[in-house]
Amino acid sequence: MPELRKDPVVGRWVIIATERARRPQDFAVEHDAADARTCPFCPGAEERTPREVLAYRAPGGAPNGPGWSVRVVPNRYPALMVEGDLDKKGRGVYDRMNGVGAHEVVIETPHHERALGDLSAGEIEAVLAAWRDRMLDLSKDGRFRYLLAFKNHGSAAGSTVGHAHSQIIALPVIPATVRDELAGGRAHWDRRDRCIWCDVVEQELSEGDGGRVVLANDQFVAVCPWAARSPFECCVLPRRHAAAFEHEPRASYGALAEVLRAVLRKVDGALDRPPYHLMLHTAPLGERDLPHFHWHLELMPVLGTVAGFEWGSGFHINPVAPESAAEFLRKVTA
Amino acid sequence: MPELRKDPVVGRWVIIATERARRPQDFAVEHDAADARTCPFCPGAEERTPREVLAYRAPGGAPNGPGWSVRVVPNRYPALMVEGDLDKKGRGVYDRMNGVGAHEVVIETPHHERALGDLSAGEIEAVLAAWRDRMLDLSKDGRFRYLLAFKNHGSAAGSTVGHAHSQIIALPVIPATVRDELAGGRAHWDRRDRCIWCDVVEQELSEGDGGRVVLANDQFVAVCPWAARSPFECCVLPRRHAAAFEHEPRASYGALAEVLRAVLRKVDGALDRPPYHLMLHTAPLGERDLPHFHWHLELMPVLGTVAGFEWGSGFHINPVAPESAAEFLRKVTA
Repeated sequence: MPELRKDPVVGRWVIIATERARRPQDFAVEHDAADARTCPFCPGAEERTPREVLAYRAPGGAPNGPGWSVRVVPNRYPALMVEGDLDKKGRGVYDRMNGVGAHEVVIETPHHERALGDLSAGEIEAVLAAWRDRMLDLSKDGRFRYLLAFKNHGSAAGSTVGHAHSQIIALPVIPATVRDELAGGRAHWDRRDRCIWCDVVEQELSEGDGGRVVLANDQFVAVCPWAARSPFECCVLPRRHAAAFEHEPRASYGALAEVLRAVLRKVDGALDRPPYHLMLHTAPLGERDLPHFHWHLELMPVLGTVAGFEWGSGFHINPVAPESAAEFLRKVTA
Repeated sequence: MPELRKDPVVGRWVIIATERARRPQDFAVEHDAADARTCPFCPGAEERTPREVLAYRAPGGAPNGPGWSVRVVPNRYPALMVEGDLDKKGRGVYDRMNGVGAHEVVIETPHHERALGDLSAGEIEAVLAAWRDRMLDLSKDGRFRYLLAFKNHGSAAGSTVGHAHSQIIALPVIPATVRDELAGGRAHWDRRDRCIWCDVVEQELSEGDGGRVVLANDQFVAVCPWAARSPFECCVLPRRHAAAFEHEPRASYGALAEVLRAVLRKVDGALDRPPYHLMLHTAPLGERDLPHFHWHLELMPVLGTVAGFEWGSGFHINPVAPESAAEFLRKVTA
């Protein structure tokens, strides 16, 4: 059983998962993304994954067979185990609990050679709908406090399977990154009675040309953040306040897919299809109506330039001003 | 002039330094560490660095010539500029200030082929003394709030020069990593009237065999942290409370050098001389007597295994239990 341990100083939870070291890909340096013959995520290879927990397929198709457009399966090498209770315990100054959680893989397309950014807006909407459907289902488990949906694209971003996929992790704790955002949002709310992300959206949209907006439609806006940590970092936010991605009205996912597709294609065009991380930050479970948290997507391209400084220092240095990155991305035709 | 920008939600300061993109090494993928002929940090090439701000050399040696054992120079490609005032300004919800600071390089040895872990305890003590001497000098500048000393070893850790060196950065803000530690230390102090790191040292030393202590002498202890973020992460702490590294009594640096040397050699032996990050966390300037902060060194080996999960999720997964790492390191003869 993996174990969750809390850092006694900063409160950051870490998964100690010694079983996972047995995962063969953990020690692979290169992955041949083009080798569809051995891909466990391709149609026809369904028996090579654990049994699906969700799939969108045409009427009449059998579960765990081909014919799907999006398919969700448990991770064969989970970071957390779905069985068992949390068994929270202290040991002197230290805190731990069992590594109970779910770890699922969302196979985003049946086409081995297509990346998320290559899909149509309708196909990306189906991926987002799969995130939503799985998140709503996982939210029924009272042991879980947070649902992480994210994607590592490309081996330099940590992906070990070339076929387009994202991951959903159900955690019994709140990740430090989200906890810091909740605290910051709370502080702004306490002082101003406004959502800080709503203020950011308002200010970004009012700055016009020369600002950090990459694109927007009537529901969503994509910006290069004011204090971007790395070149071409992008953030996609709903224009009106909403704390939980998974409780958006159904119609929103189409509008989100449009913006996400355009951003991915612009980044692909600007940086020659870079590896990237895509992260969803949504409200903790049971807090869907928070006035001081605003869900958003973070996209971080992984660039080959090794700045080095921040790795040792913990302090980020960004050699591309977000205004320049946004201007560049605005001009790229996707 | 570089700019410091604060994330409006989590309060993390980021350096936006567009000039730095011109640094040629930023786009280099590989560095030939063995090519001493072109090394700007070797004796005889002193004119290829900015003029030294500190050097330890035998009596009679001229500044900016050979004969030194440790030499400190301003970084030729600084992340921050030492001239100018902070010019702090708000812009709606955003905060910024000028990127004023110092950025220095500590050349740790005249020998091109020797890494920090290859040096004698006396030579490592001289490196630590150089950190201290520069930190005490930089602390006189009232614009600075924090001094970061760190080291990236190996190109996979972000180092762009093969010759052993560390860096010291003087910042007008407190880095997020240290700010989180200060807040956590403060919370423990408020609740318990004790330093959390003193509690950690006490608990680690009392657990005996099977615990996470790698080694200790009468002044310092090296442990694999309870919630280590990555395999073989190590933390070196003074056994009695002290907030500021640079205000240790002179005799302490020799004892620290002994422990640091042993840890580096054990990690080198265990992991075949891995790349690593080494970071000093000391108290903010002007707060040398904090009861709730305890200075320490963090050593993070950079392993080739790409876990990938934490990059997208912001949640760390460690496939090696710190007890196992500590046991392994205890047995390695350096």
